[in-house]
Amino acid sequence: MPPIPTALVKKTSKSKSNSGRRNNAPRIPTGHGHVVGVDIGASNLRIALADMSGTVLGKWSASTAKTSSPAMVVELIREGIKNLLDHASVSRRSLLAIAAGAPGITDVDTGVVLKTSYLRGWKHVPLRSLLESALRIPAAVENDVRTGAIGENWIGAARGVDNFVFLAIGTGIAAGVFANGRLIRGTDWTAGEVGYMHVPGTPEEAAAHGTPGSLESVIGGEGIRMQWLRSCNGTHVAATRKLTATEIFQRAGAGDLTAEGVLNHSAKVLAYAVYNISLVLNCTLFILGGGVGMSIPLRDATQRFLDKHSEPVQPKLVVSGLGQDAQLMGAIRLALSKAEKSI
Amino acid sequence: MPPIPTALVKKTSKSKSNSGRRNNAPRIPTGHGHVVGVDIGASNLRIALADMSGTVLGKWSASTAKTSSPAMVVELIREGIKNLLDHASVSRRSLLAIAAGAPGITDVDTGVVLKTSYLRGWKHVPLRSLLESALRIPAAVENDVRTGAIGENWIGAARGVDNFVFLAIGTGIAAGVFANGRLIRGTDWTAGEVGYMHVPGTPEEAAAHGTPGSLESVIGGEGIRMQWLRSCNGTHVAATRKLTATEIFQRAGAGDLTAEGVLNHSAKVLAYAVYNISLVLNCTLFILGGGVGMSIPLRDATQRFLDKHSEPVQPKLVVSGLGQDAQLMGAIRLALSKAEKSI
Repeated sequence: MPPIPTALVKKTSKSKSNSGRRNNAPRIPTGHGHVVGVDIGASNLRIALADMSGTVLGKWSASTAKTSSPAMVVELIREGIKNLLDHASVSRRSLLAIAAGAPGITDVDTGVVLKTSYLRGWKHVPLRSLLESALRIPAAVENDVRTGAIGENWIGAARGVDNFVFLAIGTGIAAGVFANGRLIRGTDWTAGEVGYMHVPGTPEEAAAHGTPGSLESVIGGEGIRMQWLRSCNGTHVAATRKLTATEIFQRAGAGDLTAEGVLNHSAKVLAYAVYNISLVLNCTLFILGGGVGMSIPLRDATQRFLDKHSEPVQPKLVVSGLGQDAQLMGAIRLALSKAEKSI
Repeated sequence: MPPIPTALVKKTSKSKSNSGRRNNAPRIPTGHGHVVGVDIGASNLRIALADMSGTVLGKWSASTAKTSSPAMVVELIREGIKNLLDHASVSRRSLLAIAAGAPGITDVDTGVVLKTSYLRGWKHVPLRSLLESALRIPAAVENDVRTGAIGENWIGAARGVDNFVFLAIGTGIAAGVFANGRLIRGTDWTAGEVGYMHVPGTPEEAAAHGTPGSLESVIGGEGIRMQWLRSCNGTHVAATRKLTATEIFQRAGAGDLTAEGVLNHSAKVLAYAVYNISLVLNCTLFILGGGVGMSIPLRDATQRFLDKHSEPVQPKLVVSGLGQDAQLMGAIRLALSKAEKSI
């Protein structure tokens, strides 16, 4: 990937990320055009407009709950871009490229989303062509966990790090792997699908087609909720039955012993998975992302288990500082790369 | 790695690999000089002389049991080279480079063997400098499992394959990993130390310093023997107590139910490890090497377990066709590369 200067990205905590309005970041008069980054999530679509230094000029988001077909998603992207350009007073003609992260197995050479269990199951969607046809600018597509890793490598916790793993834990679990300073995508674009990993404490059976993998069934968001429900077993009031994984982990810190049991088991299982991955790659930095992965109690408990392993690696866990923006910033980084190639 | 034409290597089954005598391979009059490849094993040192097309002109080997100090190993290498040159009627002046694979953590940038549990525990041995000083030709060093992977990628089962794993199972267990057509060495040169992996059926505790890793303690050569001894429990005669792992697996095919139990458990555990690695890298080709790994009954039983996994990868196991020569041929390939750079 050609070098692009570290972005002058305004802290997202200050930006009005979901308002669709232009944020107040100081404009850099680069004069070289603009790019668009897109994070196509299972439930939300997020778009950012940036100049060629990577400074984000505005963000926009919308629900994909009712608009999951490829054509509808592309139309939504077009609407979001128009909105962003208007608010930033940026000319449509200055757009040089777009890149999108998609939640599924993605062939970056052909630009096709091969398969996803989200978005009502896209199959062989030529997303790059659809975007290029609709917007008439060069487009790039990538798996969304890998765009997260790209974002972290660019301006996040893995800046300048050649070997690291971005581990996203939400409903699903997947890893974006950098080794030798390059993304590992694998033979069939499925590298990093570690939600299927088997470790002590996860089911021994192979996952049936279409069902969560062994690791995911225990420490994916739903897996953790199932652990909680089984552990409650009549001892907790009905009001706690709808807690999310993150809320369960928070209760552990507040002295709830049942929650603590779930946290400890989840952390132990996650530690085995992280350790196993680190053995293969000898990478010591793991960046935790995703709704579940960003839980501080989970990170802390998992690190305690990892610290028991000293041979031959001792992985270090950090929670993503970019948070939800990792994927979006990675998409911007990709779009900048695409734009540079097309100039 | 610069491209070098596929070697015209004579089948090792026809060569007198341990005799120290020149084999009868037809000589190719390349006229560009010669290289030496060395495989420093825990108990044996093996050396091969090759011309610049990669054709092996002779092999030589000696025990390292009583000569494990770095100086003694280098002296042994010098002796082997002299022997090989004499038998092949090759001039000492035509030697352009040497490369050696060492059984430990090896920094290929500085040419230092950082640590090994073999050779009476070498630590920070500047092997490349020692070889260059002693032989006055450019030298390269590499971890021996990675030289095995290089050999397989050059003229073995992974010829032209960009993503694969060479998995060596003997006393220890380690993997040489190719991804994106390049070796993965990791942050501290320990990538592929998967003998420490935790899967269902291996100890849950972290390995204590200096003890075998979790996976290795079950399916390394000694681990398999321990499984056998525990399973025998008085039911087998004393004569079977000294069987090697490979011999135990052979008995499984002959109807020994105790041996079959050991084989099945070993295969199941190995299948989990292979599957976990394949999830991280999305590599589908695994080449099994090493004294235990090359057991056909183990390969077959492990493949049956792997075939139960279809999502998202289905790894394929093949036993190394190069066998013991994988590491040696990889060393030759490295030496050729070194020689080309120095011409």
